[in-house]
Amino acid sequence: MTSVSCSAGLFACPAGAAANPVKWPYATLDAALAANAGYEGHRQMKSCMYGVFASVVKQLAAKLGEPYQSFPCEMMDYGAGGVAGWGSLCGALNGGAAVISLLVRDTTKRTALTDALFSWYQSTPLPVYVPPTSSVSVDIPAVEPQSILCHSSCSAWLKKAKVSFYSKEREERCTRLTADVARKTVELLNGSFAGSPCEPLALSQKTRDCLSCHGKNGAQANVLTKSCHGCHFTSKNKHP
Amino acid sequence: MTSVSCSAGLFACPAGAAANPVKWPYATLDAALAANAGYEGHRQMKSCMYGVFASVVKQLAAKLGEPYQSFPCEMMDYGAGGVAGWGSLCGALNGGAAVISLLVRDTTKRTALTDALFSWYQSTPLPVYVPPTSSVSVDIPAVEPQSILCHSSCSAWLKKAKVSFYSKEREERCTRLTADVARKTVELLNGSFAGSPCEPLALSQKTRDCLSCHGKNGAQANVLTKSCHGCHFTSKNKHP
Repeated sequence: MTSVSCSAGLFACPAGAAANPVKWPYATLDAALAANAGYEGHRQMKSCMYGVFASVVKQLAAKLGEPYQSFPCEMMDYGAGGVAGWGSLCGALNGGAAVISLLVRDTTKRTALTDALFSWYQSTPLPVYVPPTSSVSVDIPAVEPQSILCHSSCSAWLKKAKVSFYSKEREERCTRLTADVARKTVELLNGSFAGSPCEPLALSQKTRDCLSCHGKNGAQANVLTKSCHGCHFTSKNKHP
Repeated sequence: MTSVSCSAGLFACPAGAAANPVKWPYATLDAALAANAGYEGHRQMKSCMYGVFASVVKQLAAKLGEPYQSFPCEMMDYGAGGVAGWGSLCGALNGGAAVISLLVRDTTKRTALTDALFSWYQSTPLPVYVPPTSSVSVDIPAVEPQSILCHSSCSAWLKKAKVSFYSKEREERCTRLTADVARKTVELLNGSFAGSPCEPLALSQKTRDCLSCHGKNGAQANVLTKSCHGCHFTSKNKHP
């Protein structure tokens, strides 16, 4: 057992680890297989975050073996319900961002991929995925989440679907959405590792209007975000 | 290389892995050391999520060695700024929830620990931590975040501190807050592994009022959350 007496020492431990960092190489993945795996992973663990994360890591484990085989994917179940049911960040996006970060260590590329995933999610009617077999026989409508937050995303869908959050239809919606986010994450990773250019995020005009006052160069630089209107200026909400 | 043809096969791969899962044992940790490490980790990686996660995993690596030494803690930098600057879930909490999930696989205990961390964060004037040395000589006020979201938490603090999000003071606030969340996470983990009872979260009266209509047994069961008033009924916002 190693004695630790200071935080600087803690971050320097263990001796030699930094000299031999574990590598996390990439191999082109099958996006359709990731979608199926995302759906299956959500069904198994009741977690969108686990579904997306494991759909990528377990496919890499099957292709490349270690260190992917030993990664404790199960830990990623924590993101379900916007983390432990708090309704914050959609767990599918939390899982997508986590696996992008595991595989892409260049900050500019990682941010661009995460931005692309999040902005696609907000503005795409979801879910699109239809499983080969499903226990739910009713139609699952596709609705733009308009927000990256679990609560907002789910509530927007429920408004259209006219069912309870606790219905089998809502559970199926999130299971299929997990498949969609898994597919998109793999498509983005495949593109990036194939050399696709790293496009910076184009903020919406509405968000740019907000950030003209509240962003970095505004008179009141007191807000960090890349999208305002999923939460603000909706329904009866006025300028906060 | 293994051929993969179905998602069920993907989740069954690699053969034998489930029979020999990697163990992630716990050892009682030093909460003060975790706080210092959280602060230092944030400074090194500019990431609150990394700071909290690594403050626990690297202390376990120093005490127990593998598998903690090989865990790619750097991947957790993705949570900074509420994930890539989107302002969603506070990265310190994302890191705390992630490391709790790595170490505590019992769902009831894990949920209770995450709930305890999140509810403590919302209602505690933060930051409390004062580093042994700091480059920032001005006072850093302590403010209740009142929300688990990065944007809301930061904006509440900025309102009191009267500085820009891009100021050295705000950067120092988040660095110190990372230390506080690291300390609290270790205190909760130490207590849980020492056998402290697993207390269910007591929702606030305000949130219970909202969920009496919008929760599981309400007339409009269309909201998943454990706290409403960090976002709703603030400032000029009325009932959504």
